[in-house]
Amino acid sequence: MTVKIAVAGASGYAGGELLRLLLTHPEVEIGALTAASSAGTLLGTHQPHLAPLAGRVLAETTAETLAGHDVVFLALPHGHSAEVAAQLGPDVLVVDLAADHRLANPADWQRWYGGEHAGQWPYGLPELPGAREKLVGTKRVAVPGCFPTGGSLALAPALAAGLVEPDVTVVAVTGTSGAGKSLKPNLLGSEVMGSASAYGVAGKHRHTPEFAQNLSGAAGKPVTVSFTPVLAPMPRGILTTATAPLIGDVDENTVREVYEKAYDAEPFVQLLPAGMWPATASTLGSNNVQLQVGVDADAGRLVVICSIDNLTKGTAGGAVQSMNLALGFPEATGLSTVGVAP
Amino acid sequence: MTVKIAVAGASGYAGGELLRLLLTHPEVEIGALTAASSAGTLLGTHQPHLAPLAGRVLAETTAETLAGHDVVFLALPHGHSAEVAAQLGPDVLVVDLAADHRLANPADWQRWYGGEHAGQWPYGLPELPGAREKLVGTKRVAVPGCFPTGGSLALAPALAAGLVEPDVTVVAVTGTSGAGKSLKPNLLGSEVMGSASAYGVAGKHRHTPEFAQNLSGAAGKPVTVSFTPVLAPMPRGILTTATAPLIGDVDENTVREVYEKAYDAEPFVQLLPAGMWPATASTLGSNNVQLQVGVDADAGRLVVICSIDNLTKGTAGGAVQSMNLALGFPEATGLSTVGVAP
Amino acid sequence: MTVKIAVAGASGYAGGELLRLLLTHPEVEIGALTAASSAGTLLGTHQPHLAPLAGRVLAETTAETLAGHDVVFLALPHGHSAEVAAQLGPDVLVVDLAADHRLANPADWQRWYGGEHAGQWPYGLPELPGAREKLVGTKRVAVPGCFPTGGSLALAPALAAGLVEPDVTVVAVTGTSGAGKSLKPNLLGSEVMGSASAYGVAGKHRHTPEFAQNLSGAAGKPVTVSFTPVLAPMPRGILTTATAPLIGDVDENTVREVYEKAYDAEPFVQLLPAGMWPATASTLGSNNVQLQVGVDADAGRLVVICSIDNLTKGTAGGAVQSMNLALGFPEATGLSTVGVAP
Amino acid sequence: MTVKIAVAGASGYAGGELLRLLLTHPEVEIGALTAASSAGTLLGTHQPHLAPLAGRVLAETTAETLAGHDVVFLALPHGHSAEVAAQLGPDVLVVDLAADHRLANPADWQRWYGGEHAGQWPYGLPELPGAREKLVGTKRVAVPGCFPTGGSLALAPALAAGLVEPDVTVVAVTGTSGAGKSLKPNLLGSEVMGSASAYGVAGKHRHTPEFAQNLSGAAGKPVTVSFTPVLAPMPRGILTTATAPLIGDVDENTVREVYEKAYDAEPFVQLLPAGMWPATASTLGSNNVQLQVGVDADAGRLVVICSIDNLTKGTAGGAVQSMNLALGFPEATGLSTVGVAP
Repeated sequence: MTVKIAVAGASGYAGGELLRLLLTHPEVEIGALTAASSAGTLLGTHQPHLAPLAGRVLAETTAETLAGHDVVFLALPHGHSAEVAAQLGPDVLVVDLAADHRLANPADWQRWYGGEHAGQWPYGLPELPGAREKLVGTKRVAVPGCFPTGGSLALAPALAAGLVEPDVTVVAVTGTSGAGKSLKPNLLGSEVMGSASAYGVAGKHRHTPEFAQNLSGAAGKPVTVSFTPVLAPMPRGILTTATAPLIGDVDENTVREVYEKAYDAEPFVQLLPAGMWPATASTLGSNNVQLQVGVDADAGRLVVICSIDNLTKGTAGGAVQSMNLALGFPEATGLSTVGVAP
Repeated sequence: MTVKIAVAGASGYAGGELLRLLLTHPEVEIGALTAASSAGTLLGTHQPHLAPLAGRVLAETTAETLAGHDVVFLALPHGHSAEVAAQLGPDVLVVDLAADHRLANPADWQRWYGGEHAGQWPYGLPELPGAREKLVGTKRVAVPGCFPTGGSLALAPALAAGLVEPDVTVVAVTGTSGAGKSLKPNLLGSEVMGSASAYGVAGKHRHTPEFAQNLSGAAGKPVTVSFTPVLAPMPRGILTTATAPLIGDVDENTVREVYEKAYDAEPFVQLLPAGMWPATASTLGSNNVQLQVGVDADAGRLVVICSIDNLTKGTAGGAVQSMNLALGFPEATGLSTVGVAP
Repeated sequence: MTVKIAVAGASGYAGGELLRLLLTHPEVEIGALTAASSAGTLLGTHQPHLAPLAGRVLAETTAETLAGHDVVFLALPHGHSAEVAAQLGPDVLVVDLAADHRLANPADWQRWYGGEHAGQWPYGLPELPGAREKLVGTKRVAVPGCFPTGGSLALAPALAAGLVEPDVTVVAVTGTSGAGKSLKPNLLGSEVMGSASAYGVAGKHRHTPEFAQNLSGAAGKPVTVSFTPVLAPMPRGILTTATAPLIGDVDENTVREVYEKAYDAEPFVQLLPAGMWPATASTLGSNNVQLQVGVDADAGRLVVICSIDNLTKGTAGGAVQSMNLALGFPEATGLSTVGVAP
Repeated sequence: MTVKIAVAGASGYAGGELLRLLLTHPEVEIGALTAASSAGTLLGTHQPHLAPLAGRVLAETTAETLAGHDVVFLALPHGHSAEVAAQLGPDVLVVDLAADHRLANPADWQRWYGGEHAGQWPYGLPELPGAREKLVGTKRVAVPGCFPTGGSLALAPALAAGLVEPDVTVVAVTGTSGAGKSLKPNLLGSEVMGSASAYGVAGKHRHTPEFAQNLSGAAGKPVTVSFTPVLAPMPRGILTTATAPLIGDVDENTVREVYEKAYDAEPFVQLLPAGMWPATASTLGSNNVQLQVGVDADAGRLVVICSIDNLTKGTAGGAVQSMNLALGFPEATGLSTVGVAP
């Protein structure tokens, strides 16, 4: 079975990564590619790495250009995404890479994004407890944010098993592509290279309520989240450091067992052997999540380190994985478990 | 048909890239993985990005461990490569990624590498005139050096068509993985990042005679080569700037026609649309060669810019492409024409 | 008054940075430069950026070569540092950049470093409460570790003012030069570039007890520290994210007042205007500490971000600042408050 | 004697570097700082590394705001620079960092930049034969382009001594700050990091006529220049590879003697010891030019490698050096011969 897909927002980084993956997906035919200000130009101008599609002309993002496809991926700014989604029929599989359909609570949407809440869709992080079932056969998918992807998988097992207090601290070091192809001075190569910087500090980053929603779900009770993103001089990758106070005397073996049990059957999650710590380069270009756990007995804390590629597992790979589940393809179709390193 | 392959030198960068590609090659079963000082350790320790092979134990590089395979890839230091090759049977396909079997002239070998010349094997750059035929069905392949891969493809069409004088200047900016996993101070991240540096300047780099051999072959007469490699702060990629004096009044269209004719049927070579210039990021992780040509009428020179991934097309991808030809698989099997960017 | 200084360990990164600063210090004459395995070679081979000293020959690190100087800087591995220090006379100012004389508690030394404790010296972080007085006129200085420099200054004011619980979490993103010129595979440019990685996680990093000592001193009671270092692809810089639970309802203005009071008179510490967040590039090459504070009301936490150059304020700059205090020079002599950016 | 200086274009990279240097210049008082769209904002917003000036408000670039200064630095786009310069009095020292006053030939200006030629001013590269004399006491300085700074010093001695043919090839690898703080997609960190790319290829870069002018001046006859700039993933630095055909049988010693004689008395030019090759990190932040020469006997070519910091010696450092000559200060005042590395 071949499905025809469209990508709205094909000139951006998320759109480009989607196309990189879909080009090798055996069940997919690539249909319309749309853009906003770049409509009418060649895809090759914006994505010279997608050689087989270099001659494709970008269409405008309208209901018409997106019609006639089995799957529509929306790699659009939030707000615009829900608007376009509302014009797509109920039989089309719509995979939304923006934030519009992630949050359950309209009040959270109002506070963090503003405007009317578009409603919640099945959440495209199948490794979270309860998530995979909702994705099978669905026609609507909300792809997780890149930060909550890594951070939620890092802490969910410990919270679900009651190993830690529901009071977590997450510092996530990210590559610059997470900020998109935005023409801002602080994203220029000259500013970024050789520099680490913080932003959205002290509960100001919009991924914070998504973290809380995921982790509270895993814990079965409200979880407090302190989240700090740090921009590092690399194009891709997120290295998450997640810590929480341990409840009672828990040793590393106990923690390892909990994480092994949680992720043993997962095709894309690897708990590294004891003594090895994750590096983002090892997951680059793959859909993998590499984890390591540590117990700091002095501080009474669990520390989990987690590496993903923000554009692959954190965005486009998660989207394709969810599409596979929605359409009944084997979950790993078209996705790699091998990173591109060094 | 599935062939069983072995990789000697699996802990290094070339070996790792071979395995990255072979893991997705549909006709290949991965057999023995060998190493020198790392024998006995897990592959995952050295190549954490190759998740599906993380638990494999590295064997010693001996005739015994390499026996019983249909294909043996030698990703070993030069000299050692020829030694091991000499112990492998005539029915095994041996693909040598070192320099041992590249040069035709024993005197060149003596001067640039020293020791006894091991003889010349079919040269694994099928895009060079006359090369592909010799690879079909061969049992021995000499994989080109990374610099001559880009530089030869950049200039061969112009030399073959008699557009330029046989006196060329090549400056190639390379990522650090070309130097291998060598523990030298000048390859440390602290020294490399934020810095460009030259080395092997003024005809001191060992790839110089390979350039001359390839380009003289294309020109049908001796070609003089001035080659300068520059180390840039990036893990992968080679951007080659190749220039030569134009013979007579040649305009850009004439040059484009010559290059289009030379490469139109090649699956991995792309002459970019006029006005676009190559960037190494666009070929990263792919087997592509992206080219652009320019005519500098004031200086009377042809300038060709060429981008490859030194580890893929420049090393392991070229090796797999040659294996495909040798074994009768479609030439592009297991190789990507899509880069990993940004 | 001109003092004659010697640098033991002049071929390494800390030694190189010391010399970079001392070359512009108006009261200093540069005497013996010593090394271990590099003794007998030219400094220019190892530190080509120190052009005025390129022709200097490195001596062996012995009591004899270090004799006859007013100040001796020890940029040596821990253990070796204390050994050499023990051979230097009481009238020489000895500035130790290693860990040997930082810790007060011999049991801490035993646990984290092993071997006999060499004793505690005045601590070269004058911005910590009580530290400056002990440095004036001293003949012995223990230069702080690079991580505790940033992390201690980030949290000391809040702990001293009783704004936060004595239970802190510190994640510090560091450039690679902090690991020194060590020939380890994970420090190679090919591995480091494009990658963020964790190490010494879960209370395994030797700077942990130094953090605890400094912060407990500031708080006047024991402080629990969870410390995670992250390696980022940049040569220099540390960006520290430090958080702690707020006690009661504290707003951002209150926090700002506390930090302004703590650092207003400090020549090298800048609390950034509200809304600006630190980047390591802004402190590169300078002796500055740039801070920003944030109150996360949802999580009930103070978040402090702090940027330093690990080699300047975090190592060699701190050493020169302490030397100035010890010898009675104006504290900022030879040190810059201007970064090198972009 | 203290002179009062103004910087027009203080929010950009060239303006920032000027201020970094002028902040430590003992004879300078920093007056008006002006900008275009950033007028009215704090300098600290744009240049957070210039801590001592963080609170300065940017004025508009007008004749009024620039009045009353002894020296005016113009770090403006070309065209705008000449316009502003025309409004400044004859007694003010005007140092123009743009291209407006570099070229002698109005036809060259017309062809490469367009519009009316503003005339030629003394050229701020004192190390070129005949240049220093014209800078002493002048009231007008044209600061060289960053590429011609390195490339001209690399080849001028060989051309002046008649060692090489007047037909040169220059490939210059540059950091991204050379492109300024321009908000273009190809300058975003995500695109730049991990990638080398070419631009302005085949005689399209505007620095080409400046190269030809300088080198023809040195040779005493017209010199043909093939120039290719390559963008590398680093904020600063230019590594130039310059080659030309040797005339007759010239050995390396002869070349070294010529270069030693040319640069022995120069405070900022270092011919490296034989066997060492330049790296841009070694000149970062300094006003140094580090050179190495090589003879490629096979190719019959001289190869010269040259490292500078494009923002320091290549822009702002050259400007300050010229100001020193113009005002009668010692030439090296306020300039460093020590790089910031690693």
